[in-house]
Amino acid sequence: MALIVQKYGGTSVGDTEKIRNVAAKVARVRDENNDVVVVLSAMAGETDRLIRLAEGATDNDPDEREYDALVSTGEQVTISLLAMILKKMGYPAKSLLGSQVKIITDGSYGKARIEKIEPDRIRKELGEGKIIVVAGFQGIDEQGNITTLGRGGSDTSAVALAAALQADYCEIFTDVDGVYTTDPNIHERARKLSKITYDEMLELASAGAKVLQHRSVELAKLYSVPIYVRSSFNDGSGTLVTKEESDMEKELVSGVTCDKDQAKITVIHVPDQPGVAEKIFTPLSERNIIVDMIIQNASVEGYTDLTFTVSRKDIDEVKTILDGVAKDIEARRVDCDEKISKVSVIGLGMKSHSGVASKMFSALAREGINIMMISTSEIKISCAIKRKYTELAVRILHDVFELEKKQ
Amino acid sequence: MALIVQKYGGTSVGDTEKIRNVAAKVARVRDENNDVVVVLSAMAGETDRLIRLAEGATDNDPDEREYDALVSTGEQVTISLLAMILKKMGYPAKSLLGSQVKIITDGSYGKARIEKIEPDRIRKELGEGKIIVVAGFQGIDEQGNITTLGRGGSDTSAVALAAALQADYCEIFTDVDGVYTTDPNIHERARKLSKITYDEMLELASAGAKVLQHRSVELAKLYSVPIYVRSSFNDGSGTLVTKEESDMEKELVSGVTCDKDQAKITVIHVPDQPGVAEKIFTPLSERNIIVDMIIQNASVEGYTDLTFTVSRKDIDEVKTILDGVAKDIEARRVDCDEKISKVSVIGLGMKSHSGVASKMFSALAREGINIMMISTSEIKISCAIKRKYTELAVRILHDVFELEKKQ
Repeated sequence: MALIVQKYGGTSVGDTEKIRNVAAKVARVRDENNDVVVVLSAMAGETDRLIRLAEGATDNDPDEREYDALVSTGEQVTISLLAMILKKMGYPAKSLLGSQVKIITDGSYGKARIEKIEPDRIRKELGEGKIIVVAGFQGIDEQGNITTLGRGGSDTSAVALAAALQADYCEIFTDVDGVYTTDPNIHERARKLSKITYDEMLELASAGAKVLQHRSVELAKLYSVPIYVRSSFNDGSGTLVTKEESDMEKELVSGVTCDKDQAKITVIHVPDQPGVAEKIFTPLSERNIIVDMIIQNASVEGYTDLTFTVSRKDIDEVKTILDGVAKDIEARRVDCDEKISKVSVIGLGMKSHSGVASKMFSALAREGINIMMISTSEIKISCAIKRKYTELAVRILHDVFELEKKQ
Repeated sequence: MALIVQKYGGTSVGDTEKIRNVAAKVARVRDENNDVVVVLSAMAGETDRLIRLAEGATDNDPDEREYDALVSTGEQVTISLLAMILKKMGYPAKSLLGSQVKIITDGSYGKARIEKIEPDRIRKELGEGKIIVVAGFQGIDEQGNITTLGRGGSDTSAVALAAALQADYCEIFTDVDGVYTTDPNIHERARKLSKITYDEMLELASAGAKVLQHRSVELAKLYSVPIYVRSSFNDGSGTLVTKEESDMEKELVSGVTCDKDQAKITVIHVPDQPGVAEKIFTPLSERNIIVDMIIQNASVEGYTDLTFTVSRKDIDEVKTILDGVAKDIEARRVDCDEKISKVSVIGLGMKSHSGVASKMFSALAREGINIMMISTSEIKISCAIKRKYTELAVRILHDVFELEKKQ
């Protein structure tokens, strides 16, 4: 008998029929004598419908508190439907909202962070034999205001609940059946991984793979919660996201990923003086704009060019801010290139093996793909390239590192 | 400066545009330096949509707790939309759910009764200059489970809030512009009443007029909360529902109403013995079936016929129960007549004037309308008649009591 937290995403609860399928899956786990806590997202499309209502009502300027109160209704609908279906099937089930569990977050509406989950209420109900169905994506702050955790927040709700309840593991059911070596839509030879470490998963998430919310993997790592990523629509074994174990095969490269949501900014002819970089990056961080790769050219006659990447959605704001800064620091001008993307190779084995970077660079060069920027971490190498080469680069790198084969 | 509770029904908040109109009305009252608490229903049709979801998911057998959690989302949507529109207009507004106000009810899901409202939270927010927007129709029980108050429950939410906050009055905005002497769809000469007493309003509600939920008027009477029934769509003065005042003109008859949701049951050839009526009516009350008019014929040779009316929706259940009872008490059989309706005349003046009943009976007789049953209260006389005569009877009675004229 185990305690299992299961999370089902929006496509898995997209209509009543699909919620019935979820109920059948939950019932099966219960029948095997496990305690089950289920975390649900809103029906696919419902959160977007509510967002449109809010934006339509306020010329795209909804109050954040009220916005969270509004969009959190989506999960309230799915959890009560699942609980009533389970009860109709004869299982004692009960839905709980973030406010009823007491999922306490900070007060950052729209992107709140979970600070504390009180496990007693759920433990008591589980002790009475109940299946507990919890609204994902939502919590309350200390004053009892409803908060939401941001896109993909239900993953984080599930992992945080698993941590608070010391569950045996957390299953994330989604519309893909696991974590792949790369996006199967890009490369037919993508292979499903049976296991991946938290650190690799975090790099994959940063590098553009959208299987799990980044924050949920951070929490899983922090509290050592094993995560199974599985399909809602079949009974495949999925991928286990877990800590690095001594007996784990350290794959040199476990995945290739790409991120097209990238734009490149170059501030040209910047005086190469102390404090200039600060003048450029501080106003961006004050607006919560995330800067990813940064390179600075070698200085020529006291001037340099500074190049970095940001998310495409931020590009207009960045341009406005930096046109002002450029004048102030007497740089020549600010150039934008929105036609770039980032490809990354990720693997725990890089820690102890050299040669991955050079193999990556020469593979891209052989196909005539110019590398515009490079950034690295202990277990990841990313290159900015022209966007039109994205899929080609992914396939080349997947092939050159032989990811289709189990290593 | 007054404290005003305003309630807007489902048609008044039917879409974003209508919610904007509500915001403008609320803002106007605020601009006149009043404190305002707004109570909203769900968008027209939304509660029905949620009910269909629940029924579809469970073969019409949803768990009551989960059903209430589900349908209460409708009001959460409208209150957050109104609050964000008001904020966008520059007014400090805040939405509060039943659980946030702390509207405490008993645990009768789907038809909960408000037991207590804690006024402190709202008082504090009003003291800070806020407009408070409260979800109607919902509360929580002592365990924090979401409950709903039943159809029309938002009226009751509004009046209960007005009572708890000792508001100066409660305005109920709806799709009619007041309380009429009769349904204007039945008689073109129906006249809007400027004032009516709680007792008359209660009798009107029992007798089939659907302007206010019965329970809301009971509460208003108990706590002496003046109610203005007004239109959401024009600025007319509406009808004031208030206590009987010494200077109030006591209208002999203030309204005529009809109720087509009636069916007549006759248990034929019942042994006229002590305890027989109990055997008939106890099993009905145990199923919460409300019996309205009752008549018992004079006994002939130790046998009598017992006739009464119930709501049409209950007729199949009543028939099943009574077929069993009839066998048990050795009555001959049970007859049903679903083609009846009830017409009623209501007026505070009946208390001190005789002659209303005879005037009513003779007016109906003149038109050849047979009276099948009669029931009376201090301020109401009701007659059961053939359903096909309903509208005709209403018009005749309206005319004979000269209700089109201000008395």
